[in-house]
Amino acid sequence: MFMGASTKEGQLIAEKSREIVRSLIKDKIIGLNPYEIDIVERIVHSTADPDYADLVKMSSDFVDSALKSLKNNEDILTDINMVKSGITQYSGEVKCFIKEEEVKKIAKRDEITRAAASIQYASDNGFEGIMVFGNAPTAVFKAIELYEKAELNIKAIVGVPVGFVAASESKERLYNSNIPNIITIGPKGGTPIAVATVNSLISQI
Amino acid sequence: MFMGASTKEGQLIAEKSREIVRSLIKDKIIGLNPYEIDIVERIVHSTADPDYADLVKMSSDFVDSALKSLKNNEDILTDINMVKSGITQYSGEVKCFIKEEEVKKIAKRDEITRAAASIQYASDNGFEGIMVFGNAPTAVFKAIELYEKAELNIKAIVGVPVGFVAASESKERLYNSNIPNIITIGPKGGTPIAVATVNSLISQI
Repeated sequence: MFMGASTKEGQLIAEKSREIVRSLIKDKIIGLNPYEIDIVERIVHSTADPDYADLVKMSSDFVDSALKSLKNNEDILTDINMVKSGITQYSGEVKCFIKEEEVKKIAKRDEITRAAASIQYASDNGFEGIMVFGNAPTAVFKAIELYEKAELNIKAIVGVPVGFVAASESKERLYNSNIPNIITIGPKGGTPIAVATVNSLISQI
Repeated sequence: MFMGASTKEGQLIAEKSREIVRSLIKDKIIGLNPYEIDIVERIVHSTADPDYADLVKMSSDFVDSALKSLKNNEDILTDINMVKSGITQYSGEVKCFIKEEEVKKIAKRDEITRAAASIQYASDNGFEGIMVFGNAPTAVFKAIELYEKAELNIKAIVGVPVGFVAASESKERLYNSNIPNIITIGPKGGTPIAVATVNSLISQI
């Protein structure tokens, strides 16, 4: 099985597509290690947008720290359910708290978004693992805040929120933090980029 | 509630983002009606990629036919579960058959992808409504084939598979069919584009 394809025809399409991706971005991945190259290739494969090879940045400890966490079957927390539903091959648990009643209460109490409240809820409940944000910049800010107060045990953040407001700033802030991270520069990002990153890592455990 | 935001902060971000989208694409939406403009704006909003304003094409009967189907609470069928999980506000049913045991059997029997087999399964079970494809070109081809044999009651197709192999061809074929449709020209497309289109339509019922 390759890239989620489960039939011969699906597999042939996926393999041929991957070859095209390789040829399109080969000049842009110089200096990356094989793990990092696989992540970038998957992102470009899943968006058909070679620009992502220029936009993706990873801290040098991102892959090691994320792989270690995944090998230990630690939790993966996503900002929204659409991201969660794209991560289907993990032997550990993939969680999303955004629809929990308790999260709605925290959002109301603290006057924050439900996405940010879901990170507070994770912290309150002893979360340990990787956080994956494809959509909510407010979740990224909250995760950094709690990490820096030593109230959140994050091993890595996939921080690729999409949008013209707050997304870029949240990713820049994350890239300048001490948390092992992957980001995309600028407004672009989103669910497929988040999912492709995590699925690449899972396939490389 | 606006664009899925359920708190004041989330709503402010969504509204400001939508304003920026409008200013970025205002020269590209000339000639579209308000329903179609909303679809294009949502797609650009959810990808932060203004190029989509040039890539999206709709048949002139797409919006009318899709809205009529949604007003009648007919089914929405998606190619993969990630697309399904992004459509959360529909009063009718949102279905995805790709993991059904029967679909696996059809794929094996007919030597086709599971995505294509899920369309055969829909036809076998009297499907009526809208089909939404963010990922699988083979599903698009199968839907057109069965529609043209009068074996599938499709009111509209959101046909935006992403990828460097077969995706463009499937979308061109769909655009040249008699099925009310929306497509993206070229390899780009994917889950967020599919979800944004359907959520725009649902918000406009």
